[in-house]
Amino acid sequence: MLTVLKIGGKLLDDEAQLGSALAAFANIEGPKILVHGGGKKGSEISRRLGIEPQMVDGRRITDAATLEVVTMVYAGLLNKTVVAKLQALGCNALGLSGADGNAVLSKKRGTGAIDYGFVGDIESVNNELIINFLENNLTPVVSPITHDSQGQLLNTNADTIAQMLAVSLAQNFEVTLKFCFEKNGVLVDPTDDDSVLPSLDSAAYEGYKSAGVISEGMLPKLDNAFAAKHGGVKDVWVCGIEGIAKEFGTLIYP
Amino acid sequence: MLTVLKIGGKLLDDEAQLGSALAAFANIEGPKILVHGGGKKGSEISRRLGIEPQMVDGRRITDAATLEVVTMVYAGLLNKTVVAKLQALGCNALGLSGADGNAVLSKKRGTGAIDYGFVGDIESVNNELIINFLENNLTPVVSPITHDSQGQLLNTNADTIAQMLAVSLAQNFEVTLKFCFEKNGVLVDPTDDDSVLPSLDSAAYEGYKSAGVISEGMLPKLDNAFAAKHGGVKDVWVCGIEGIAKEFGTLIYP
Repeated sequence: MLTVLKIGGKLLDDEAQLGSALAAFANIEGPKILVHGGGKKGSEISRRLGIEPQMVDGRRITDAATLEVVTMVYAGLLNKTVVAKLQALGCNALGLSGADGNAVLSKKRGTGAIDYGFVGDIESVNNELIINFLENNLTPVVSPITHDSQGQLLNTNADTIAQMLAVSLAQNFEVTLKFCFEKNGVLVDPTDDDSVLPSLDSAAYEGYKSAGVISEGMLPKLDNAFAAKHGGVKDVWVCGIEGIAKEFGTLIYP
Repeated sequence: MLTVLKIGGKLLDDEAQLGSALAAFANIEGPKILVHGGGKKGSEISRRLGIEPQMVDGRRITDAATLEVVTMVYAGLLNKTVVAKLQALGCNALGLSGADGNAVLSKKRGTGAIDYGFVGDIESVNNELIINFLENNLTPVVSPITHDSQGQLLNTNADTIAQMLAVSLAQNFEVTLKFCFEKNGVLVDPTDDDSVLPSLDSAAYEGYKSAGVISEGMLPKLDNAFAAKHGGVKDVWVCGIEGIAKEFGTLIYP
């Protein structure tokens, strides 16, 4: 059983919550992979450098200057901070961008109605590399920066990286994938943190979407959750910190 | 035969020179490791963030805010840029800080006359990890950020990392260590780039130091070069880009 845990959202911005999430992750038995997003630090550093973040539908427009910032913050500061904390917790973490060992290969997104800039859509995951690390008792910690194998780094959605890693490694392992964020699961009432759905299937998801109950930032996360489930991942959860160590949150059904 | 190449100084700040150095490195036969320093980008980003760099004897005072900057720039931007460029050159690079897989363990320097802040002195190198990577045809690319295994990242001199890696791995390999920078070797006249010493031994080094011929920034580099030679590294060179692919520069004798 392989666990792939994605941590993101406000969890990354709060040192105490990040510490709790990493302590729970370090205690998971068996092979495991951590994927982290960017959090607010990217925008904060960007502003301090005089580069105003540009977002369209919650996605960052990544021009050359912004790519430098997210590479610094995600693959540098955040990734190494998480790796050092996990090492202190007895977890033999190994930080990776997609360029490292060609772990995650992507392609610059084509320019449609919106030019997202240096944003990557994933082409492939290097299972052989990841499995070799896991067999050597290393725990990959993956940042959302990938490459195109031609020398170009690309900003890449962390939920999608987690999904693609989980689906690809489902060829070799029974995989549990957990998308962990600041809520305890998928909420039917975004204003009520206790309104967690214990489970969600595709039909119900479509209904909630049509009714506008689930919207905004949850849609890409849930699209990735369903893609993972349809792609052969055994268990897919959307959860909070409490859901890292135990089965607590929203379980995704096909 | 294992090659350990340190690249630093102004090489890192010039895209064309960095490209030439990486192309030469990618062509080296056999197992190899690249160690890179920080270059000017650390100070540039620091200033843009409103943190004035503080240097004492050419060494950076690393307070908490500066540690964030060097972690971002060295372990993030610079390391991943180099890794992506090497991948494009067909070299299967794997970027590492000392925290990754506990590759390089260090200890925060004690406060003497000068408090250097979050600066690490190396305690040990994880040979088993590095050898495993080399056996799997991965090329470690090491940034000068290490950790203390208690969760603290530490800014660490890249020349010393290269030396300690080379000495430690000399237990397992015949090692060639090259310190590559913007000059073609050790100069007897710092104003004449053609005044390269073809070789240098300890006695001559002491003489040049007493006479003030070799001074300033060259001293820590040469101290590391001699430490490597005395520590069992087979060949130690101080060289420029031309010295990466062939034997060209200053050869260090005990």
